[in-house]
Amino acid sequence: MERRVNDRPRLVVVGGDAGGMSAASQARRRLGPEDLRILSLERGPYTSYSACGIPYLVGRTVSSPEELIVRDPATFEREHGIEVRTRTEATDIDLDRRVVRAVGPDGRVEEPYDLLVIATGAVPQRPDLPGATSTGIFGVQTLGDGVAVRRYVDERSPSAAVVVGAGYIGLEMAEALLRRGIHVTVLEAGPEPMGTLDPDMGRLVADALREAGAEFHPSRRVTGFESAEGRVTAVVTDEKTHPCDMVVLGLGVRPNSDLARRAGLEIGPTGGIAVDRRMRTSAENVWAAGDCVEVFHRVSRAPAAIALGTHANKQGRVAGTNLSGGYAAFGGVVGTALTRVCDVEVARTGLNEEEATRAGFEFATATTESTTRAGYFPGAAALTIKLLAERRTGRLLGGQIVGRENAGKRVDVLATALWNGMAVDEMAEMDLGYAPPFSPVWDPVLIAARRLAERV
Amino acid sequence: MERRVNDRPRLVVVGGDAGGMSAASQARRRLGPEDLRILSLERGPYTSYSACGIPYLVGRTVSSPEELIVRDPATFEREHGIEVRTRTEATDIDLDRRVVRAVGPDGRVEEPYDLLVIATGAVPQRPDLPGATSTGIFGVQTLGDGVAVRRYVDERSPSAAVVVGAGYIGLEMAEALLRRGIHVTVLEAGPEPMGTLDPDMGRLVADALREAGAEFHPSRRVTGFESAEGRVTAVVTDEKTHPCDMVVLGLGVRPNSDLARRAGLEIGPTGGIAVDRRMRTSAENVWAAGDCVEVFHRVSRAPAAIALGTHANKQGRVAGTNLSGGYAAFGGVVGTALTRVCDVEVARTGLNEEEATRAGFEFATATTESTTRAGYFPGAAALTIKLLAERRTGRLLGGQIVGRENAGKRVDVLATALWNGMAVDEMAEMDLGYAPPFSPVWDPVLIAARRLAERV
Repeated sequence: MERRVNDRPRLVVVGGDAGGMSAASQARRRLGPEDLRILSLERGPYTSYSACGIPYLVGRTVSSPEELIVRDPATFEREHGIEVRTRTEATDIDLDRRVVRAVGPDGRVEEPYDLLVIATGAVPQRPDLPGATSTGIFGVQTLGDGVAVRRYVDERSPSAAVVVGAGYIGLEMAEALLRRGIHVTVLEAGPEPMGTLDPDMGRLVADALREAGAEFHPSRRVTGFESAEGRVTAVVTDEKTHPCDMVVLGLGVRPNSDLARRAGLEIGPTGGIAVDRRMRTSAENVWAAGDCVEVFHRVSRAPAAIALGTHANKQGRVAGTNLSGGYAAFGGVVGTALTRVCDVEVARTGLNEEEATRAGFEFATATTESTTRAGYFPGAAALTIKLLAERRTGRLLGGQIVGRENAGKRVDVLATALWNGMAVDEMAEMDLGYAPPFSPVWDPVLIAARRLAERV
Repeated sequence: MERRVNDRPRLVVVGGDAGGMSAASQARRRLGPEDLRILSLERGPYTSYSACGIPYLVGRTVSSPEELIVRDPATFEREHGIEVRTRTEATDIDLDRRVVRAVGPDGRVEEPYDLLVIATGAVPQRPDLPGATSTGIFGVQTLGDGVAVRRYVDERSPSAAVVVGAGYIGLEMAEALLRRGIHVTVLEAGPEPMGTLDPDMGRLVADALREAGAEFHPSRRVTGFESAEGRVTAVVTDEKTHPCDMVVLGLGVRPNSDLARRAGLEIGPTGGIAVDRRMRTSAENVWAAGDCVEVFHRVSRAPAAIALGTHANKQGRVAGTNLSGGYAAFGGVVGTALTRVCDVEVARTGLNEEEATRAGFEFATATTESTTRAGYFPGAAALTIKLLAERRTGRLLGGQIVGRENAGKRVDVLATALWNGMAVDEMAEMDLGYAPPFSPVWDPVLIAARRLAERV
């Protein structure tokens, strides 16, 4: 080990966002600088920011990018004794020699490690289509992307935007652009927006999107982009050409596991880095956390790659505990997701019909319309809940909620029930909070569970 | 059985509100009029109303008492074939002869039954103090009470009101009277409002109450009422006399089990009618449901009498299923309660410190301050969560939440976790919904559970 500058072990973290910095911070909490040196390599200029806040930055709900940053590199260095090198991209990992090679402001470097955390996040899907690299076409994955979109809107005041892909990020960006007074067209390959919902629930989101003033076109395949002087002027689909001043791509992400794969680490069937419950990879002393990994789905019992800051934080914490000699395990996911678009709250957890079918379940469903408050209470608004349960056992498999204010966070009850493997007949008995400003006397979740219990 | 007018069995339901009418409706759903006659006897003029809505009626958030009525007697008769006799009070039950004696508009009657449901609700605690029967002193238990308070406020425009008792109904009434422009003084015997919370959490409610413009005096014992010409003019306490034009009593309720007790039915230690999981009383063919019964508390494992419409509805449904030949069981309660007073949402579930101690638990607590949305998101407001867990096992025992908009209904996650007997370390792993408008990336419930897991 002649490379070590001294005898303290060194942790290198590749990736300075949620997963990586949670691991670094947790390791530091357990081991002081006298026991562990920590170096974080981050490709971009920022650390530990809320990627979920990017649409609100673009829509000017949030005024500056700094508000989205939880801790900047200087704070990590000063308060936590964690060295952070931004604008430094790891290019290779040599597992035998225990070094990470990277390119940064000072050129190529080789950083030796005793312990390694890979937290390289996700990469947005980009279509390989004519014109896809024109100016004015944006992905929105990093805070840098968000800053670029916002600057483009501020400086060029586009009048028409096309959002390609009606998933979470696509619709959140659509809302943000509507807020900026831009005409927005959303193009989606599937039959309804929000492909993680069943189409009957997605339809409610389409209604809200149109009500908010967006054009929504389902079942559209984008075939290319037109441009003038290198700047996008239209999106071409199999049916029609949509002129526009800017394009936002919201086509989802995949685990950014290329670095790990090249190093020879085991990659799972989802394309994410394979890890055990302690977030250990297939190589000794190498951990991984965040959007780049795949984890256990508690309902399907299959590996799942779900890009979400909440998981990244938990996984990073687990990795940081374990690599510093403790014991912690990541409990898996149930597939919970939540957003608000155009005044409609959209939530899902567990498996949708397609996922449940793929996982081999035979199931029944029930959809209930209710209200977010007692019917007579001012502000009571529509709320629709759909539940899926396994036939015979009645075990809850998943749930979807679409409704106005006060609807979405109810998904937590479903997520907690799923986590515990509850059957819908028992769910219907639960003692949930009731008061007229919060719920009808029969809580919508209980009604839905009861109806479904009568069908399984 | 010579008393029968024909050979169809007859169900008599004593009490026409949530518990009684849920039982009647469920029985009717299962057995048509050709198989079962149903008679409901109701002391007051209304059936099936939202008692929880009464404060909103007084505060004019809800415009008319009719809005609070789910189904009126005529609807029950017309649509469900359920005979309802209002203003008819049951005075005796003769279990041997299977008759209920009652007094109504037509004088004394004797109604034979084959099946009987007792759903006599709760009675407000009234202090036995000098002047307690003066005009202008109100309890608020029935919709009739609510109508009377509202009429008094409308007609006499009182300028100062005293609310005695700072529990749920007392504080909801305080808020309603503040909305009507009345100066409100709240007197409470305990150290803080909301005695079902621990005092450290109750203090947050006291702050909100004072911020909203009410006077709040804890640790005050009411010793009497002063009046002039039969109308209340002041509330006298051990420390001071509070002049006022009206008084609202919010001293809690007790199960109205007198009729059952006189009939010889078994009454439990809480004063509620003892029932089994099917809501059967100690007498054959006699069921009970609603605020008049006591039920199993899943955390303390002791009987509990909790007056709440949600339980009454479920219990009535269970009774109605069983008495009509089906099988259903009431799963018990975990002690969830929720309200909003003066812009603060207050929720609790499980056991508080005093209750946990009484039940014999050794426990640890953790209190976490967080926000209702991501810190950078507009409208993010303070939220405090306190959790209790058993030592050694780490099992959640209870939780309390006080916070601004978006805080209270989170209690459902705690209630669901309690229902499943979860330990706080596992709770901290759960996959709850996250998006900036709904929660910080570390959900307040998860943070609280994690902190507590480190202490048990």
